[in-house]
Amino acid sequence: MSSSTVSPKEAARQRFIDVFDDIVEELTEILKSYKMPQEAIDWFQRNLNYNTPGGKLNRGLSVVDTYAILNSTTVDKLSDAQYKKVAILGWAIELLQAYFLVADDMMDQSKTRRGQPCWYLVEKVGNIAINDSFMLEGAIYEILRRHFRQDSCYVDLLDLFHEVTFQTELGQLLDLVTADEEHVDLDKFSLAKHSFIVIFKTAYYSFYLPVALAMFMVGINDEQDLKQVRDVLIPLGEYFQIQDDYLDCFGTAEQIGKIGTDIKDNKCSWVVNQALLKATPEQRQLLDNNYGRKDDESEAKCKQLFNEMGIDKIYHDYEEDTVQKLRQQIDQIDESRGLKKEVLTSFLNKVYKRSK
Amino acid sequence: MSSSTVSPKEAARQRFIDVFDDIVEELTEILKSYKMPQEAIDWFQRNLNYNTPGGKLNRGLSVVDTYAILNSTTVDKLSDAQYKKVAILGWAIELLQAYFLVADDMMDQSKTRRGQPCWYLVEKVGNIAINDSFMLEGAIYEILRRHFRQDSCYVDLLDLFHEVTFQTELGQLLDLVTADEEHVDLDKFSLAKHSFIVIFKTAYYSFYLPVALAMFMVGINDEQDLKQVRDVLIPLGEYFQIQDDYLDCFGTAEQIGKIGTDIKDNKCSWVVNQALLKATPEQRQLLDNNYGRKDDESEAKCKQLFNEMGIDKIYHDYEEDTVQKLRQQIDQIDESRGLKKEVLTSFLNKVYKRSK
Repeated sequence: MSSSTVSPKEAARQRFIDVFDDIVEELTEILKSYKMPQEAIDWFQRNLNYNTPGGKLNRGLSVVDTYAILNSTTVDKLSDAQYKKVAILGWAIELLQAYFLVADDMMDQSKTRRGQPCWYLVEKVGNIAINDSFMLEGAIYEILRRHFRQDSCYVDLLDLFHEVTFQTELGQLLDLVTADEEHVDLDKFSLAKHSFIVIFKTAYYSFYLPVALAMFMVGINDEQDLKQVRDVLIPLGEYFQIQDDYLDCFGTAEQIGKIGTDIKDNKCSWVVNQALLKATPEQRQLLDNNYGRKDDESEAKCKQLFNEMGIDKIYHDYEEDTVQKLRQQIDQIDESRGLKKEVLTSFLNKVYKRSK
Repeated sequence: MSSSTVSPKEAARQRFIDVFDDIVEELTEILKSYKMPQEAIDWFQRNLNYNTPGGKLNRGLSVVDTYAILNSTTVDKLSDAQYKKVAILGWAIELLQAYFLVADDMMDQSKTRRGQPCWYLVEKVGNIAINDSFMLEGAIYEILRRHFRQDSCYVDLLDLFHEVTFQTELGQLLDLVTADEEHVDLDKFSLAKHSFIVIFKTAYYSFYLPVALAMFMVGINDEQDLKQVRDVLIPLGEYFQIQDDYLDCFGTAEQIGKIGTDIKDNKCSWVVNQALLKATPEQRQLLDNNYGRKDDESEAKCKQLFNEMGIDKIYHDYEEDTVQKLRQQIDQIDESRGLKKEVLTSFLNKVYKRSK
């Protein structure tokens, strides 16, 4: 493809990916300085390259976007040095996500991820993937130390990564003890649990973390400002995941680019929780008999019930209500210490009415 | 048992364990503050209690011992507040070790650990153990933040934990790609690899980390001092592991408290590496045919060969030579910035001529 046919979005993505190659090079140098045998260096490089890029990179790219907004500029106007430094924070989130996904796929016994076999299913990998996931996390702190050790924000960056990592693990724990694929028991579900799982497992690291990292890098670290963005981004992340749950059940395959499996997988989804909330004894019986079963017929019965119960309308009401409240909240943001409303509206606009 | 029958060593251990109960309590409060559902809190507590205490606690206790020596006092003279704070650093190492062991047991498909089933084999745990291992690591940074955030050594503590964690993961990686139980290939072994594996997988976190933590806490953080202790403790840790390999093969079950399985498990042990170094073509053939096989007869043939080759003497020569060199090195330690030779001699004396 000639460069003239590359879209600006694609060019931005490529610039970001180029920084990852530098990171891999840098990590390789560390291993070489330790005189690590070549076969283990090769393995680590393969782990990094197989598991870290390849996704949509939304989280990583949004650190760069947020940083540009907070500096009242655009990404293309950042100097190479500035760009590289903030992109490294973006890749630190992508490494964190890679750490979680490699492990999640093993715990869920998933088969594919981003159109390729899950890492633990790759020949010769198997359970070594556990240590590989550890090393993806370890890489975060190696690159942060090398690029941020002298900066005043360094401790804040470390504390934030630790806090958000622990929160994500708490969300994953509750998800694992709630959704047992072998013992379907809808009594274990509740909207409160759903809310905890999506906020801890997704919202903190996908929504709050990118913005807070960019804020720390530009020097906005007042707890009031962190709270202002958290108070918007956590509900926004929750809404994002509820939308994901909704689309899994009500979206078409063309719309969402995959086939939803939450019903068959006995997932503690927003959809089933809404249904449980207002189910008559008969409707509850239908769910007990069909939710979490692996066959198409049971799945179709659940879907039909969700349609009859008007979950679709409940979702759209929730969406409009949430977006309206978030817009009001953003409108009242205090920008006096350097925070910008635009950071939050740009996130909201990416989520609102997306189809995938 | 009445208190008068408790040995001083047992009392010291109990004081240390009491701090762990406080840590579990503190972590529980964090989860409660997040409004985490009780079933997940119960799970986390069980994870902590099952996997963290129960070992010899040498690493954790040595942080406390080192701290007392550096303060020219004894452990029993530390105030409760001082004791608790340094014991928290000790438990941070024990949590790090728990994180590694839970995962190692899954990767090695081990059956028991410290006289009980491995965590992943406990009913209902299974692959959730991966996230549980993450949470054991996460707990380290939660407690460090709560107890050391205001201290000038805080960043050094975090950097040290990150560095040592990554080093341990590198050692584990090389071990995993070298010792493939299914494809025995002695060409993959070498003394250089053995040395890398034991230094990275064991020596850094078991020997260097406890001493460096205590040094940071008392304010000794000059790179020259860190290098002085590293230059003794890393070879000492290597010697400790070589001793372990030696005892696995040459020690009696009564001596080492377990039955050695390195030969059957195709381990890249110091013993087989020494044999490979001087094996005639015939002896090499015998090893190719018998090392790493699961039967008693093959194992016995290997042991007989090791005896014929005088590995026992090579070990004792290595031990005397190493200990003598380490004593000389310790003797030349520069104590001018507060470091004490006694820290290192006390470690050396614990390792030299131990039988288990």
